[in-house]
Amino acid sequence: LHPITVADVGEHALIANIRSRLTMPSWVVVGPGDDAAVLRPERGTLEVVTTDAQVEGIHFDRRFVPPEAIGHRALAVNLSDLAAMGGRPRAALLSLILPDRLTVDDLNGILDGLVSLASRHGTVLIGGNITRSPGPLVVDVTVLGTVRPRKALTRSGARPGDIVYVTGWLGDAAVGLKRLRSGAGAAEALTGCDVDRFLRPEPRVRAGVLLGQNRVATSCMDLSDGLADGVRQVAEASGVGIVLDGAVLPLSSSVKNWHEQHGGNPLDTALSGGEDYELMFTVRPRKHGALRGVRQRMGDLPITRIGVVTKARDLLVAASGDTRVLPAGFQHFR
Amino acid sequence: LHPITVADVGEHALIANIRSRLTMPSWVVVGPGDDAAVLRPERGTLEVVTTDAQVEGIHFDRRFVPPEAIGHRALAVNLSDLAAMGGRPRAALLSLILPDRLTVDDLNGILDGLVSLASRHGTVLIGGNITRSPGPLVVDVTVLGTVRPRKALTRSGARPGDIVYVTGWLGDAAVGLKRLRSGAGAAEALTGCDVDRFLRPEPRVRAGVLLGQNRVATSCMDLSDGLADGVRQVAEASGVGIVLDGAVLPLSSSVKNWHEQHGGNPLDTALSGGEDYELMFTVRPRKHGALRGVRQRMGDLPITRIGVVTKARDLLVAASGDTRVLPAGFQHFR
Repeated sequence: LHPITVADVGEHALIANIRSRLTMPSWVVVGPGDDAAVLRPERGTLEVVTTDAQVEGIHFDRRFVPPEAIGHRALAVNLSDLAAMGGRPRAALLSLILPDRLTVDDLNGILDGLVSLASRHGTVLIGGNITRSPGPLVVDVTVLGTVRPRKALTRSGARPGDIVYVTGWLGDAAVGLKRLRSGAGAAEALTGCDVDRFLRPEPRVRAGVLLGQNRVATSCMDLSDGLADGVRQVAEASGVGIVLDGAVLPLSSSVKNWHEQHGGNPLDTALSGGEDYELMFTVRPRKHGALRGVRQRMGDLPITRIGVVTKARDLLVAASGDTRVLPAGFQHFR
Repeated sequence: LHPITVADVGEHALIANIRSRLTMPSWVVVGPGDDAAVLRPERGTLEVVTTDAQVEGIHFDRRFVPPEAIGHRALAVNLSDLAAMGGRPRAALLSLILPDRLTVDDLNGILDGLVSLASRHGTVLIGGNITRSPGPLVVDVTVLGTVRPRKALTRSGARPGDIVYVTGWLGDAAVGLKRLRSGAGAAEALTGCDVDRFLRPEPRVRAGVLLGQNRVATSCMDLSDGLADGVRQVAEASGVGIVLDGAVLPLSSSVKNWHEQHGGNPLDTALSGGEDYELMFTVRPRKHGALRGVRQRMGDLPITRIGVVTKARDLLVAASGDTRVLPAGFQHFR
């Protein structure tokens, strides 16, 4: 009696199982189960589209990332990209590449995590694809959303004099991952918020939409590959420099505690850790009042001023009376 | 001096390389290189969306499928799904999951194949994602297109008395794959049209659009997993039966020759071979005249009458004076 695997059940039954969980709104003209999905576009909006994959052995380790977190993350990284454009998510496509040995229970866990996050953000799973993998489990998601004309936030709009802000906290996910790696197999016992921020990052959808609607931000991107990478990408796309104030980066007590126990510099974790899925954005100084309005509507989510955009195209971080060149961010194959 | 691999070059340079090949039309408000792409929808249309992955070791074997064919196939299977809905393709997202050892030359070949097919079908590569694979090469594509309201073709509209048709030829891809497998390593020498039909299937985009526009077809699907699977899916979705005339299935001389040399029944190849990416569709008898109009505008692509839709929910194939139950089609994990 071994646990039932996806190979035991077969493609058609797996698809039927997924379809049975879903209910379609009226704007889905043809939902899952046909050759393609058909949607009625939302009037007066532009469409925002993005895709991002979670690959076993690269983005997650199944020894300490439970199935439901894999599903959550696979959608969250896409919602975060959409949020960074000021987009409101609407629909998702799920491309599953599954090893034969994956159990149906684990697949259901992945779906639970994905569908639960989707429904919290008004996102409908409209279709997808299932195929076999001869190697790792891959969960590849495409998200479609909407943005009002001229409200899309890009990476290229930062101008000298703009103030640089970031939502939430930096470094938690990196510390959470370190904690999970060191205690692999005992994930249940690790209930720190850093661990949870790695396993179940909360995409800043509402923040992105508010920043776009009010035309508060001149540029925006999400910090999937760390703050240093974000700064570099926005500066490059905008043709500007950025100076960060290392002393004010928002570090949680969890990040500080970890470094007090294990050494190392929390600033490095904040700059290069990655996977925080916070939004970094730039604001013209005269838009300060409008930003206050966004803050009020954002509830508990902090927004921290972390630097300034400069004409000189240097990327610097000032800390402890010293100014140094920004470290490189994470990139795949490097 | 080893060939340059994707691991040598790094994610950012790979993305820059892809972006440099692309030109964006005016309806792409934000193209590749930002967190997400932003598109202006086409007025008065519904949106059609589909996703499909090509996985090394499952869908292709790199020993006899050249990189350019991998790219072609990855897009073609999606365009075929869109065609089956009567959709006109517009934009594609490319999710690449690449082993470190993949050479930059091979990646360029994949892109060549994909971009070349895309431009022939007016499809713009608007974005995507690149990540590492610890195992197989995966090329996962999402295609967005348009269809006029009430012109979408589904699997569920077949009614008793409808005539069943298929475009093109059946079994070529299966024979082509057999030929490639038996002569692995000598792909250049194999120039048979069956081999080409496996490596570079031509999605029936124009046929699908014409069938949808004229409201000729009551149902339609593409034959990715073989005619038997297609018949089964349409019959199930429509709540009907289908009787095929095995004597009239469109077999190319290539399929007939192969079976003359190697034995076996060409009918089985036509029914269960799969990967032909032809369209199977059903037409009410009184729409015969409208179908003639579609035929005329389809040029050289044959359309063959292969069966009839029945009220009795049996799936049968009549051949050589005998009627038998339809074999099962291909499904993953089975």
